Amino acid sequence: MKTYISRYENALTQDIIPFWQQHCIDREYGGFFTSLDQDGSVYDTTKYMWMQWRIVYMFAEFYLSPYRKDEFIDIASSGFDFLYRNGRDEEGNYYFALNRQGDAVIAPYNVFSECFAAMGSAMMYKATGEPRYASAAREAMANYTSRIRSGNPAGRWNKAMPKKQQYLSLGHYMMLANLGLIMDDCLGGNNYSAELDTALEMVLDRFYNRELNVVFENILPDGSFDLASCQGRMLNPGHVLEAMWFLLNALEQRPDTPENRERSARICGIISDTLELGWDKEYGGIYYFMDALGKPHLELQHDMKLWWPHNEALIALLFAYRHSHDAKFLDKFNMVDQWTWAHFPDPEYGEWFAYLNRRGEVTHKLKGGKWKTFFHLPRCLKVCVEQMKRINS
Amino acid sequence: MKTYISRYENALTQDIIPFWQQHCIDREYGGFFTSLDQDGSVYDTTKYMWMQWRIVYMFAEFYLSPYRKDEFIDIASSGFDFLYRNGRDEEGNYYFALNRQGDAVIAPYNVFSECFAAMGSAMMYKATGEPRYASAAREAMANYTSRIRSGNPAGRWNKAMPKKQQYLSLGHYMMLANLGLIMDDCLGGNNYSAELDTALEMVLDRFYNRELNVVFENILPDGSFDLASCQGRMLNPGHVLEAMWFLLNALEQRPDTPENRERSARICGIISDTLELGWDKEYGGIYYFMDALGKPHLELQHDMKLWWPHNEALIALLFAYRHSHDAKFLDKFNMVDQWTWAHFPDPEYGEWFAYLNRRGEVTHKLKGGKWKTFFHLPRCLKVCVEQMKRINS
Repeated sequence: MKTYISRYENALTQDIIPFWQQHCIDREYGGFFTSLDQDGSVYDTTKYMWMQWRIVYMFAEFYLSPYRKDEFIDIASSGFDFLYRNGRDEEGNYYFALNRQGDAVIAPYNVFSECFAAMGSAMMYKATGEPRYASAAREAMANYTSRIRSGNPAGRWNKAMPKKQQYLSLGHYMMLANLGLIMDDCLGGNNYSAELDTALEMVLDRFYNRELNVVFENILPDGSFDLASCQGRMLNPGHVLEAMWFLLNALEQRPDTPENRERSARICGIISDTLELGWDKEYGGIYYFMDALGKPHLELQHDMKLWWPHNEALIALLFAYRHSHDAKFLDKFNMVDQWTWAHFPDPEYGEWFAYLNRRGEVTHKLKGGKWKTFFHLPRCLKVCVEQMKRINS
Repeated sequence: MKTYISRYENALTQDIIPFWQQHCIDREYGGFFTSLDQDGSVYDTTKYMWMQWRIVYMFAEFYLSPYRKDEFIDIASSGFDFLYRNGRDEEGNYYFALNRQGDAVIAPYNVFSECFAAMGSAMMYKATGEPRYASAAREAMANYTSRIRSGNPAGRWNKAMPKKQQYLSLGHYMMLANLGLIMDDCLGGNNYSAELDTALEMVLDRFYNRELNVVFENILPDGSFDLASCQGRMLNPGHVLEAMWFLLNALEQRPDTPENRERSARICGIISDTLELGWDKEYGGIYYFMDALGKPHLELQHDMKLWWPHNEALIALLFAYRHSHDAKFLDKFNMVDQWTWAHFPDPEYGEWFAYLNRRGEVTHKLKGGKWKTFFHLPRCLKVCVEQMKRINS
């Protein structure tokens, strides 16, 4: 593991953190630039809320890490101030996007803005102990859970008519597991234990389809599978791999019972099978979207190779190895590691490209944009190093 | 032109029309299936309004064409009945999608549903003379224009906040030109002449940027260009080529003045330059989206080759040749024709694939879906044959 550890730590501390620290801070208006071109130059100044809060979260987390630098907390706290001051409507919901100056430009239709605001604020509290961050985290979390429980998180921007087929969404349950752990860890207490149990049960017993041996993105409210529609057949291997390490992480907070050992084994099996299904046997890499029956996918980019499913796969494989002690997970880790590091890093300007075509060729030179920020990649490097060190010890 | 004409007519009458006639009709509930897999089998039954009304329009148009079959009007009129009965909310706005049974499933947030409803209904009137079709066309057109004029066509589903940068949209003006011509042609009269003038002026004098020699998708309300944002820099070569043949078609209804001759020459120049810009010099084919300054594009599928820009390019090049008598347009037509026919048609099951990667390899086997139906391709074949026959005569 030693050569892996030094490569992952070097990338994190010598490349990824400095790239974002140098290029993402808007010193004039506050908040962050995330639309960064290959060389870090800014190609659009829109401030997308998910991307902004994830930067707050990560810099606060790195302030608490072995890679700590004093300025990390200044970056995170000035981001928090900009977002908390400008980011919410009268009801306290976070907009989807602000302009550079901090004016709202896209309405608060997306509930995951609250989710990342809660994560970022909670980590600020853990890093500083200042009560205002804890209350901002609880406000965002309360809005998140009440909007989710309303059954209509998009509120008045929801385009679904009453007769539209309703689905339960994997993303909702997997986020519950991750967010619950972070809230309890940062704010103290054991307030989300029931949510973790729900997430484990729902993902492993409902979203997982034994017959097809896949985890679906969307299932019917009665727990059955909708194989007649694109939405019902949709698979997202990177999402499943991310959900699986969230669940293994959650299991580590539960008692070591036979039931939980069986769950751990089931999750490791799903990680192995999902990677087998999602791995492109011809060109390597993990497909973005798939159809459970091999029918056409509506998304044009379904066969592209994105950075984040590879980040999540690396983490999931190390978790699976630690849980199972099965050497095949290290072999798979080695395979994914090799493909990932051969294709995503930019040798010229540093950081990683986000989007490759099926062959693994770079299609976009951006380092950040509407959906890529300082988040999946640094989290992957940090969590992988932690897992490697635990494996070594 | 003779071999072109026979190839295009054969494809239309022996392949494309029969494929859709055989596979798209929902004989149980009415309306159409448009999510058709490679072999024509149905992979999803959602009835997207744009796709549905475009089928009504095309079958009604083919009923009036040299390729007329009596059943064409039955297909179109049963589609009309299903859509007019099930497709509108209480205010008469067309939903974005129905389920197979005809229940509304996606809200009427998209004003182009009205646009295609107006086109389909107007063509039904032209084909049959039945007044109910003319009134349905006028209703849809009135809703279309009043929603556009409101400045907020998405109504309560609009996610833009007041401080979001507003843009004028090329799509709006080009649709005005096409829809106005169709309404006047089908319903009689000369009601949309002012709209055609507006479209000509706006596209040629505002959306066209002389310095960069491109036609932008979005310009600022004062007519200036926003080169600092992704939205402001966005180019869509297929869209521009489509707009240009709409405008040449509109010009043919205007007096032959020096001003209009200058406009015709300018449009031909734009067609030539847009194809030059949008053509992939390495692999051939027309890019889907581009950035005017070569900065990263937010859309993952920007470098893919879609069927419809190639359809629109073929039409635009024949129009340009007829208007300019410049042989270079026939050379370009030949180049686009060769690439298009070598890559899109499916030799196994007929019809054309919709989506190719940059190299021209098929990425989706579907023949129809949420965005492809019986429309661009049959329109291209029909209009190209008409143009070829005029060139020959």
